[in-house]
Order: sequence, then C-alpha cells, then structure tokens
Amino acid sequence: MPVADIVHLEEFAAAHRLHARDLGVQENAETYGACQNIHGHNYVLEVTVRGEVDARTGMVMNLVDLRSAMREEIVDQVDHRFLNEDVSFLQDLPVITTENLAIAFWSRLAAREAGWGGPKLHRVRLMESQSNIVDYYGE
Amino acid sequence: MPVADIVHLEEFAAAHRLHARDLGVQENAETYGACQNIHGHNYVLEVTVRGEVDARTGMVMNLVDLRSAMREEIVDQVDHRFLNEDVSFLQDLPVITTENLAIAFWSRLAAREAGWGGPKLHRVRLMESQSNIVDYYGE
Amino acid sequence: MPVADIVHLEEFAAAHRLHARDLGVQENAETYGACQNIHGHNYVLEVTVRGEVDARTGMVMNLVDLRSAMREEIVDQVDHRFLNEDVSFLQDLPVITTENLAIAFWSRLAAREAGWGGPKLHRVRLMESQSNIVDYYGE
Amino acid sequence: MPVADIVHLEEFAAAHRLHARDLGVQENAETYGACQNIHGHNYVLEVTVRGEVDARTGMVMNLVDLRSAMREEIVDQVDHRFLNEDVSFLQDLPVITTENLAIAFWSRLAAREAGWGGPKLHRVRLMESQSNIVDYYGE
Amino acid sequence: MPVADIVHLEEFAAAHRLHARDLGVQENAETYGACQNIHGHNYVLEVTVRGEVDARTGMVMNLVDLRSAMREEIVDQVDHRFLNEDVSFLQDLPVITTENLAIAFWSRLAAREAGWGGPKLHRVRLMESQSNIVDYYGE
Amino acid sequence: MPVADIVHLEEFAAAHRLHARDLGVQENAETYGACQNIHGHNYVLEVTVRGEVDARTGMVMNLVDLRSAMREEIVDQVDHRFLNEDVSFLQDLPVITTENLAIAFWSRLAAREAGWGGPKLHRVRLMESQSNIVDYYGE
Repeated sequence: MPVADIVHLEEFAAAHRLHARDLGVQENAETYGACQNIHGHNYVLEVTVRGEVDARTGMVMNLVDLRSAMREEIVDQVDHRFLNEDVSFLQDLPVITTENLAIAFWSRLAAREAGWGGPKLHRVRLMESQSNIVDYYGE
Repeated sequence: MPVADIVHLEEFAAAHRLHARDLGVQENAETYGACQNIHGHNYVLEVTVRGEVDARTGMVMNLVDLRSAMREEIVDQVDHRFLNEDVSFLQDLPVITTENLAIAFWSRLAAREAGWGGPKLHRVRLMESQSNIVDYYGE
Repeated sequence: MPVADIVHLEEFAAAHRLHARDLGVQENAETYGACQNIHGHNYVLEVTVRGEVDARTGMVMNLVDLRSAMREEIVDQVDHRFLNEDVSFLQDLPVITTENLAIAFWSRLAAREAGWGGPKLHRVRLMESQSNIVDYYGE
Repeated sequence: MPVADIVHLEEFAAAHRLHARDLGVQENAETYGACQNIHGHNYVLEVTVRGEVDARTGMVMNLVDLRSAMREEIVDQVDHRFLNEDVSFLQDLPVITTENLAIAFWSRLAAREAGWGGPKLHRVRLMESQSNIVDYYGE
Repeated sequence: MPVADIVHLEEFAAAHRLHARDLGVQENAETYGACQNIHGHNYVLEVTVRGEVDARTGMVMNLVDLRSAMREEIVDQVDHRFLNEDVSFLQDLPVITTENLAIAFWSRLAAREAGWGGPKLHRVRLMESQSNIVDYYGE
Repeated sequence: MPVADIVHLEEFAAAHRLHARDLGVQENAETYGACQNIHGHNYVLEVTVRGEVDARTGMVMNLVDLRSAMREEIVDQVDHRFLNEDVSFLQDLPVITTENLAIAFWSRLAAREAGWGGPKLHRVRLMESQSNIVDYYGE
C-alpha cells in the first residue's frame, strides 16, 4: 500500500514564562531576557502521522481520532492555562520552552499511537508564533 | 487634496486574565469561564489614520511616525508582559478585555495625534486571535 | 459609554452551484460559467456586532453568545452540506450566490439580536475564498 | 433591493522607489530613508464595489467583470514592472507612494464604472505588505 | 551542482463526499460521519520538485513548466467540479479522500516528469483546509 | 539528549530581475519572460537549525542568536535593495533566481554556524511569494 502523511492543526491560547530551574538569577536573565516575564501566545500545534493508506477507507487513519488525541491529550489540558503552574504533566520540565513543550506533547501523543493500529507519529510541530517554530521527530 | 487612510499593524505577545473588579466570584465565573485563568495571545494591533495626502510627499503621514507611536506608546509597554499586573497605564481598567484594551490604546495614540500635523486617528483594531477582534473608533 | 465593534469568525465547508431559478439555460450558462457546476468552498463567516462597552463586564456582549448564535443559526445548518439542496432556510433563494447567502445569514442572526440586550448586528461578511468576499450591512 | 458590497483581491509583484519630484536631495533622504532605494513588494490590490443585489442573478455585479477590470486596468499594467519608469499612467505622479498608487488605481477603475450598470466603486485598498496598507474611498 | 527544491502552490474549489465503494451503509456512516454529505473546499495543491540547480539558468526547472503541469494535469480538471462524478481520472478511486486525491495527482504529475529533463517530483501536498493536510512522497 | 529543529522567519522587501550573464538576449527572453523586467517581492526567509536540546536551557540554541545571524548576514544587506546591483555578496551570481539566493544565503549563515556551539544549519527556505518557494539543504 502507498504511504502518506496526514497533518492536523489545532490552536490554543496559553501563558508561560522562561525561567530555568537549573540556572541562577543572572544566567536566567541573560538567557531569556524579556521572555522571563509572564506573557502568552496563540500557539498552533501541528501533528503529522505517517502510515499506509487503507485500501478500503482511503485513509491513513481517521482524522477524527487524530483530532481527539490532540484535543484530549494536549489542547484540553493547556488551552487557557498558565503553562508554568496549571498543567500537571508539565511540572517536571526544567523550563517551559517551545522545545520542551514539543517533546512533552510528543510523549502524550505517542501513548495513543498503539490505538491507531499501524500509523506512527512522525512529527510534532509547535508554533509559538508564525515566526518562531519548533519541530520534534521523536529522536 | 484627496483623503486616504493609512493602516499599520504590529504584533505583541502578552498574558492576561478576565476577572472584573466589580463582579463577585460567581458572576466572574459565569461571565468569563476559562478566560478567568491566566492565558495569553499573540495580539495584533492595527491602527488606521485618516488624512489628506500631501501633494509633495504623497503621504498621509510618514509611516515611520505612525510606527513609532504604536511601538513607543503601546507595543514597548505591553509586549512580553502580564497585562493585569505589569502595565501601569492599564491598572485602572476594571477588567482587561479586548474592548477595554482597544479603548486604552486609543487614548495613548490620541495623545500623539497633535504631533502629526493634520491626520486623525480613525480606528484602533485589536485582534486577540484571527477569530476574535475588536474595533474602536473613539466614540 | 464608549461604543465598540466585536468581530468573530467561523469557518464551514460546503458545496453549492450557481443556477438561477428565474434564468433560462443559456442565460444561466452565460452568467455563471463554470460556477454552474457543483463545487465547494471553505467559507469564512465574519460577523460584526456594535454596541456600548458595559462598564462592569468590559464587553460589548459576551463572545460566547455571539459564537453560539453563529454556530446554531448558521454553521451547524450549512457545514458539510450541499447548500442548494440540504438547507431548508435556503430553499426559497432564487440562486445560491454569496450575496444571497450573506443576506440570508443576516436574517437568522438578526432574529437573535433581541436576546443580546442592546448590541446590534452591524455587518455580515462572507468569504467564499480569500479573494472573493461579500459584505452585507442589513440595508 | 438590498445593497451589498463585493470585494475582490488580486496580487502583483512590482518594484518602486520613493523619491519625490518636488523635494530636494536632503529632504528626500530625510523623508523616505531606505525607501529611496529601488526595492519591491508583492502588492495586494483589494477593490470593493457597492450596489443593489439583482433579484434575478443574485449578484451586485458579475465578479468576472470586476476581475477583468482590475486585471486589464491595473494588474496587467503594473505586474513585473518598475513602477517609477515602466508604467505610462504613473509617470505624472510626483512620487510613487502607496497613497498615490491607490488614487491612480481608483481613477482607472472609475472609468469602467459606467459599464457596470449601477454598482459603484466604493474602496480601493492597496497592501504594500500585510503590515502596511492604504485605503482610498474616492474623496 | 547544488540540489534544491522548488515548491509551487495552486488553488481550486471543488465538491466531494466521502462514501467508500467497498463499505456498507453502516460502515460508511460510522467511518465518515458528516463527510458523507456533499460538501466542498478551497483546496490548495502544493508540489515540490527536487533537482540540480542549472549553472546557466540558476533554476531547478522553469517554474512556468511546473505551473503548466499542475494546471493542465490537475487544476483545469478538478476546479469547479464535483470530484465524485465529474472527473474521469478519479472514477476508479474507491473513495475520494484527500489521501487518494494526493496519490492520484502524483500519478498525473509523474507522467510529466520525463519532460523536465532531470528534476524529480518529490512531494505532493494537498490541503483540504488550513487544518487538514496530506503529504505524499510517491512511495 | 533529544534533537529538535528550531525555525525562524524574517521578511524583507527587495527588487530583482532575472537576466542570466551566460545567456544571450533571445535565450534570456525565452527563459525568463516578464521576470526579465525589474520587479520585486516581499521575500520571506525561513531558516531551520537542528541540534540537541540543552538540558539546562531547554533550547537548541538561543533564538536571539539565530535571529541576529539572519538579520546581520542577510536581511540588513538585502532589505530595500535592488539585488542585481546593490548587494556586494550577490555580484558574482550568474543570475538572481530564488535558487541562487537561497544558496548564497546558506553560505553566509553557515559561516556563523561554528559560533553556535553544536547546532547545524538544516534548511534555508526562501519564499518569493506564498506560491513560489525554494528550499536548500546545503548539498
């Protein structure tokens, strides 16, 4: 069967600040500058799943299932939240950067992968804005 | 001379929460729901200025001056800030809604209008997201 | 109280064809060309409501109520539908143009206006694509 | 009959520089800065026409005719051109600002208005970029 | 010679419905839900071609040729059509999903590849909306 | 450590024309058509850097450093310039195509890579418009 990627995007509005647990005051200030302040974004989460196109359904997987996984595992947890304080699965992160968020989101989606019956999570893209983006491929 | 509008857009990333000073706990919860939580946006500020097109310069006003006014009066004050706590000129607002922000931003820009030598502030548009927008015409 | 506009956007995916009840075969062909064929769009519905900003809530109206009106009256009726055949409130239209859709959508939203307690429907914008748009102000 | 606006957008890629015929060297430098250099844009031209919605066709005017007017009168003349030198109908402008372009484009479209049988040109919007826009209403 | 990718995008407006030839009534309903209804999209077709940059022309291939291939092979066939019924080269598909469309479009473009003298089709991306996308790499 | 990509975008407005040093008059005309004329674009430069996510800072590299490299090496040199004449590091290019620009921009950014302490330049994407894009991976 041919292999294709399906890509779905969801938005959420959240606040965060960049302040690393393992850095001192001065190093935090030098590293993150104004991003140390509480601020926020309309984040866009884009998830790519790769798999064979089913001959009968014509789909890699049902888009409804991908959307549900994204909403239940991520969007419903982080939308309209202060990521540094309000989200339990993010509390162990040393700092709430876009990189660390993308990796944490991958983990939660990967836990759903087995239920998809074949297709594999290929990429988690997290856009903090249209100009600042992180891609994570699970490696 | 012909009259035209010039429109300039700037972005900023900020956090806020909707919690009204003059509402009780239950009324705040019923009115604002999840927007009571600290969250954030990539706000887009769009300002329209209306005036005669100068015959010699071919401009309503110098775009550099409009951009400076927007940055100095607003963006530099609110970007990477928690609007409910960090911005002095917003402290008297009863609640940090998009409507109240647009009106507050109008006031700050209007204070620069005299220096523009003719053109008038026509509209302040504040986009909380691409789906939720407020327009204020100063009335 | 200051007066502001709030604007909310919703999307829906629908099919339609342009074929006017009151035109003959040749006139339909000459008027609508390839738009006579069944085709479709990701429509964007943008609604503007104008009203006083409430001093206590800081809002023209609760965005949740505007969104509900747009979804219940319009999006839930037309999303994933063939507009020429599947939508009862469109059956009397002589032809399913963007103009006629915008006017029909205005009527349905206007019926909700009384429940908003003051703010008035100001504009219905319907975007067939990012290049083709109709605005209707209720007149 | 109800009155509506139809809006159509077209893009073109052109070069220009800001250097005013009636300003001296120093005043040009102070007024336009780096915009004095030859540079360019993907311009977006957005034209709004207002008129009654025809009861039989359901249209303000045929979009094909609006598009033809925009392409023949403007886009075909300015696309892939250096606006300061290559476009005859722009040669009398004292300076090639967005304001002056919008006004010049209005004139060319207004000459087509009589052929539309009723609808009137309402607005010419010219976007130099997504952040810098001029609107002209013909006044 | 250095190797680069060129990417070109084209839009088309089409209707479709998801109803699989090889599924029963109930399975179709459970699999596709509201997508079983005739609806439509402003599809965006994005094609990537990979090849060496020609030392004399500075191009992977002439963009005009890529655009012609995309328009002649695909856009001219599917724009303003009901994909389930009006397009001969889609009639053998078991169901008109975005995945199957992307694969069918790849086949038509691949037939033009030999005429390009070196560059190879690398990816066909088909966007049903800005939130739902399929990528196909020909494997 | 996990590996991620960070992506940053910057815009610039520039003019260019396609006229190859090594082609004759007729071959230039046949190859480039209207693109031989001086015209321009709002170019978007998108750069991807790949590297390990630092355990302490949570970042592949400081976005400020990537942005500085992009601005100092490229945007400050080409913004509001006529690329065929005004930019010294482009003078040796045989023709100012998007492909050649992307390759030239890669070279300038690659010279900064050593200062980043680990992360590697992965892709330079240059968008002449939203429909015409070139990707270069340094090979």
